[in-house]
Parts: sequence; structure tokens; C-alpha cells
Amino acid sequence: MFFKVKSSEDVFEILRGFDSVPTEKIFIGDSLNRVLGEGITSGEDMPNFSRSSVDGYAVQAKDTFGASDSLPAFLELAGEVEMGKASQNIVGPGTAVRIPTGGMIPEGADAVVMIEYCHSVDEKTIEVSRSVAPLENIISRGDDFRKGSVLFNKGTVLRPQDIGLLAGLGVKNVLVYQRPKVGIISTGDEIVPIDQKPGPGQIRDINSHTLSAFCSQSGAIPVNMGLCKDDFDEMRKVVGDALRTCDTVWISGGSSVGTRDMTLKVFESFSDARILVHGIAISPGKPTIIARAGNKSLFGLPGHVASAMIVAEIFLDPFLAWLSGEEKGAGDHRFYLNARLERNIESASGRDDYIRVKLKKRDDQMFAEPIFGKSGLISTLVEAQGLVKIDRNTEGLYKDQIVRVMLLKPYRTGEI
Amino acid sequence: MFFKVKSSEDVFEILRGFDSVPTEKIFIGDSLNRVLGEGITSGEDMPNFSRSSVDGYAVQAKDTFGASDSLPAFLELAGEVEMGKASQNIVGPGTAVRIPTGGMIPEGADAVVMIEYCHSVDEKTIEVSRSVAPLENIISRGDDFRKGSVLFNKGTVLRPQDIGLLAGLGVKNVLVYQRPKVGIISTGDEIVPIDQKPGPGQIRDINSHTLSAFCSQSGAIPVNMGLCKDDFDEMRKVVGDALRTCDTVWISGGSSVGTRDMTLKVFESFSDARILVHGIAISPGKPTIIARAGNKSLFGLPGHVASAMIVAEIFLDPFLAWLSGEEKGAGDHRFYLNARLERNIESASGRDDYIRVKLKKRDDQMFAEPIFGKSGLISTLVEAQGLVKIDRNTEGLYKDQIVRVMLLKPYRTGEI
Repeated sequence: MFFKVKSSEDVFEILRGFDSVPTEKIFIGDSLNRVLGEGITSGEDMPNFSRSSVDGYAVQAKDTFGASDSLPAFLELAGEVEMGKASQNIVGPGTAVRIPTGGMIPEGADAVVMIEYCHSVDEKTIEVSRSVAPLENIISRGDDFRKGSVLFNKGTVLRPQDIGLLAGLGVKNVLVYQRPKVGIISTGDEIVPIDQKPGPGQIRDINSHTLSAFCSQSGAIPVNMGLCKDDFDEMRKVVGDALRTCDTVWISGGSSVGTRDMTLKVFESFSDARILVHGIAISPGKPTIIARAGNKSLFGLPGHVASAMIVAEIFLDPFLAWLSGEEKGAGDHRFYLNARLERNIESASGRDDYIRVKLKKRDDQMFAEPIFGKSGLISTLVEAQGLVKIDRNTEGLYKDQIVRVMLLKPYRTGEI
Repeated sequence: MFFKVKSSEDVFEILRGFDSVPTEKIFIGDSLNRVLGEGITSGEDMPNFSRSSVDGYAVQAKDTFGASDSLPAFLELAGEVEMGKASQNIVGPGTAVRIPTGGMIPEGADAVVMIEYCHSVDEKTIEVSRSVAPLENIISRGDDFRKGSVLFNKGTVLRPQDIGLLAGLGVKNVLVYQRPKVGIISTGDEIVPIDQKPGPGQIRDINSHTLSAFCSQSGAIPVNMGLCKDDFDEMRKVVGDALRTCDTVWISGGSSVGTRDMTLKVFESFSDARILVHGIAISPGKPTIIARAGNKSLFGLPGHVASAMIVAEIFLDPFLAWLSGEEKGAGDHRFYLNARLERNIESASGRDDYIRVKLKKRDDQMFAEPIFGKSGLISTLVEAQGLVKIDRNTEGLYKDQIVRVMLLKPYRTGEI
């Protein structure tokens, strides 16, 4: 019953011992939120030619020096730049070429005067009533990125703008880490599939649906291995199947000591398996088991879905980021908000307590209201918008204290 | 050139004039981050029977009152509860039934004594060294939710724990709003597909890839309508195609006045179309056009990808949430972080300026460093982790001022 529990830091350290999943080459259109498996260097200057950033006239800046409404400069109109084409004209001293926004700066020009400051005098002449400095209203070749500059490091999570940059450089396919495949198993003699009416003493399978959605939210691919009775042979078979096809295996259920022991025995039964963690100094979530078989990880999660989800939020979300090759994976990975605590919370020392809280805004101040209730209740998690950690060296938190709230995804200001 | 621009508030108000997309019934396993199209009420008590939350003995609490190590209570062992089955035994006065965590509380029992406080005296007798109060260590029927209680309102974004709750209640399929389909069109005579080598004056299509990924990030379905030349007939045809198949149409490109006017004419050419917005008082992003044809929205976005993306971040992300039926859609929808500004920023009054910033943590304090640079550069957005708004009634922000940083997705503490 009283196994030697590990601290959260030890668990993170152990999780960082697993290698990331393999990489694959994919089309950039499918790469949102994927993690780069290689650094990327610009193969060319971006933009690859100097462009006008306004509608106007390409000129030699010195020809406009001193120009004003009362003393305009007169320039000879030497043609027009067409979008998507090199200009046929050269801008010499005293000449100007009409150019649209995005047009290629013609040879000889070093600035663009905005059209607002130019007036047509006759078909061949314009007057310019404002001076421009060299490079004014020009996006120069290489202003965005120079050829050879590092755009992204390996381990970067790709955002829309990052994908846009890759598109702009003609990078059609990128090497990214695969999405980790997570084998999910729900155990328990009392569990029935959700489309079956539970008999007396039976409940529907909550855990595999919750954990599957959790995996998707963390960018992984859930592989639902189905339900499993509290039976050694059956459990060993399904865990073995999951180990063959998945990168990590999560088994949940069995909150009684007997079933927990069975999960442990099943994990130990694989020839190359080692138990790494048998209990974590957190609440809820203490009876968590972590094992390793080859480079694959096995998790025995608490049977209560709320406890399993806290373990998932704290450890498995960062672990999936780590497996996915994220630069900062397997550490604290979450998003925080400061809030004023609405009530005192006591806590046992020696373990990190995670308190579920509701967030409420009043008078421009954010308040965190602890959700008390039996930790096995899913309602506590459904009502929660965040978690407050009470460190194992702290005996509690006080009303009106400002606390860091670890937010639950998806992050939405609208909700809080 | 100087059209009558609308304020951001007016634009949000206009966007709220569009109806949400239709609903559809889907499997809960596919419902992560989807928006409920109906309120959901619990069809039964959850849990549906009283369960033990510990390994122990189901008893009548009064039989344990006063029990201690020195004066234990002796109870007759009347059997054992099996997981997933109703107990065959009744707990009468002076009796106890062995029960595992999650087991169904037998008739007659009103509390469970943890196994740690029970010792076997002989095959038929246990001694109990701790008293329990009525309902102690029991999750009672309906503790999570009572039959008939409202679980979720229409418009709720489903999270893993919410899906778990639905699973637990046997709700296999839910009515959700469809994901909005966004027709994306990139225009410009200078644009070539990303797998084509650009000639002089040409650039690759950045915008449709960036905006497509943006749509996916906001939960919508991007429909890439391809590239389109600056030609009225061609543009009208592709916009018409997009209107038939999509819920909203986004056309980007054409930063010159001529192409912007063409987008406007194309929008106006549809029989039931009305121009709602012709310019927004923001920078970058001012030359944005919004039109309505039936219940479908048409957006003419700036050609510079960085400007288009700011408009997308500020208006289109909340608009997609609104179209998707989210309760709090089409308003400020984003996530903020306070940071200390590293430099003064000037701003023209009369418009909301959005400054791209990098975030840096030093000495436990978050700093926002403004990214200056021509607004057309994609690098400014690739380097940015957030946006700082300078309100149109403000002339600037000062170094060391604490500013609210609107974070760009995906939110990761690890990065900042």
C-alpha cells in the first residue's frame, strides 16, 4: 500500500529518458502545429527582388530633395511597372516610373514617392511635392530573410505564419516528427461500452473517451484498444498488442489495490520491461505506474477519470510534446493566469496537491474559486477552468492570496 | 482613397449580424473542440448507484461510533461485493461486507471503513479501529449530476472531460455546429504557385497557405480555391464558386488601389450583395472590405500577408467562433498576458494600432519587445509571440509601462 513515491521533478526527468518518435516528410498544408524534425535555412533572399510598398512613382531620391507644395520637383515619366513583371524601363536622373504596390523596383530607382504627392502635369511629366529618402517605401531584396539565414530550429511548433514563410520560400514539404500514437485501454469488470445499458453495479466507459480526446487535444493520435476485464491474460494480450502498434500505452481503471497490482504484474511480464515509477507524490493521481519496455512507455493511470485527467494534464501533455520532438517538451508546458483565491485551502505536506478551480471575473479582478468534492467525481473537472498547485512544501493557501492558475485547454478568454 | 472607415466595435457588431452555420449530429469521439448545437440535460443520475471510493468494508456507520485502536468494534463479515455486480448481501446492524474501490454499496450500508482500519479476527469476524460518519467513503447516486440537471448549454466548446461526461451518460452522438467552410482565394498577377519558380517580379503564393492554416487553427475547414489573376471575370467566377460551396469567402491580395477597387466591384456584382465595411480603423489592416451576399460573408483582405493575418487574428478568429455557434463568439476572444514594454511606441490617434511583440522572461518578469519593420514583412509575424493594441484614443505607449499582450496561438509557456 505504501510504495515509495517519486516527486514530480523525478517523474519529468524519467520521462525525458524516452526518445522522440520518428520523423516523416509531409506537405506544409498539413503541418499546422506539427514539430519540425530539422532546422530550416532560407534557400534564397526573401523577398527575392526589391518591391514597392505603396502605389506611386519609382524615382532617384536625390531628385526629390527639397521638393514641396510650393516648390515641386518635375520629373519625366518614363513608363509603368506591371505587376509580376520586370520593369522594361530604367530610372535615370530626372525620371520617374509609375509603380503599383508590390511592383518590382526598376533599375536605377532607389525610392518610391507615394501617389498622393505626385500630380500629372502632362502625358510625359509629373510634379512631386514631397521629398523621399533613399529606400523610402521600398521593401528591399532580403529584407525579410537573407539567403542562408536560419529560419527555424528543429523542434519548432509550426504556426500559420511559419507555414506562410515556408510557402514563400518554395518549401513544399517539411520533415516533422510523427504524431505519437497512444494505445488507450480501459480496464475494469464493471465497465461497459457507452452504447450498452449498464446493469446494477456497472458503469459506462468514461476513461477511454476522455483520454482519447485528451490525446487529440495534445496533438497525438489516440488508438482505442477497447475495454479489458480485470484478468491477467486478457490484459497482457491487449497491452502487448498496444505495445506493437503504438508509441506509448495508457491503461486506466482499477482503483482497488488488487487491480493496481495486476497492472503492475502485466507491465513486469514483458521481457524487457522495467518499472520506473510506482506512485507519484501528487494528489489526486498518486497511484500512477510508469514502466518502460524498449523505448516504449507504459502508464498505469488511476481509475477515477478526474484523477487520471490530472495526471494527464500535469505529465502526459508535456510528455506527448516531448515525444513529438518539441524543443521544450516534458517540462512545465502550460499556460497560467494569476487570480485571487476565494477560500482557504488546506493541504497535506509531502505531496503536490492540484485543486480544481472555477475562474470568475469581478471588478476587473480574476478570482479562483476552489471546487471541493470527492476527487473521483467528473463534475469537478467539468466545472473547472484551471488547476492550482499547492506545492509539497506548503501547508495550504489562504483566501485572497494571488495564485497561479494552470489553465485547462482550450484557452478562451470568453469563458472566464 | 479616403473611404469612411469603421471602428473595430462596429465591425464586430456587423459580424454578429451573420447567422451561425447549420448543425449536424456526430459521434462524441469526433467532437473535441466542437460547439454544442443543443443544450444537454442529464438523462439519469450519475453515478447511477452509490459506490465505494476506497477498498474496505461497507457497514452501518453507527456500529463504528466510538471505535478506536484500544476499543475496536467487532462486526460479522457477511460477504463480499464483486465489481460490476449488485451485492447479494444485505448489511444489517453489526455486519460488514468487503467492498473494493468502485464497488456498489450493498443494501443497508451507509458508510465504508477503509481496509487499513480493519483487521480479520477470524473467518466470520473483523475488528474496526476507527469510526466512520454516515456517507463517509461513499460516492452517492447522483453525486456528480442528478437526472434532469443541465450539463451543458448550447454553444459550449467540448473539452475532453465534457466528452467523458457525455460518454458516462451514454450520449453517443451529439448535435454540434458544422465547422465553417472558408473559401480562400489569393489574387495578384505576380503570384505563382509554391512549386513554381518565380520569374522576375513574381512571388510565391504565401497568403492562401497562411490563411488555410489559420482557418484550421480556428477550427474551420479551409477550401483552397486557388490563385486568381487581377481580372474581373476570372475573380467573379472564382468568388461565385466559393459562395456556392463555402460559408464565408476570403480573398486576399491586391494591395494597390486598382486591385482593391476590383475586389469591391466583384463583391458588388452579386445580385444580393451589400458592402458592409470599406476600411477599418486599424493598422495594419485598414483596407479591409466586408460584404454580405445572402447569409454569406465576403472578406477582401490586405495583400500583405502580415496585414492580412492581423485582420484574421483580430476579427476572423472570433468570427469563425461566432459562425460555429460559440456562446461568446465575435468579440474579444483571445488570451492575454501582462508584460513590461521595452521601448516607447508612438501611434497615430484615430485608429487602433497592433504592434507585434516578442516576449522575453528576465528575473521572473515578462518583457514585451516591439518588432519594428515594414508591416508587409512576414518576418515580423514569424518573430512575434503576441500583439499589443494601442487604442485609437491613445497616442502611444511608454517604455516600462505594463501592457496587455494578446498572445498568438498556439499558447505555450515553454516558448516565452
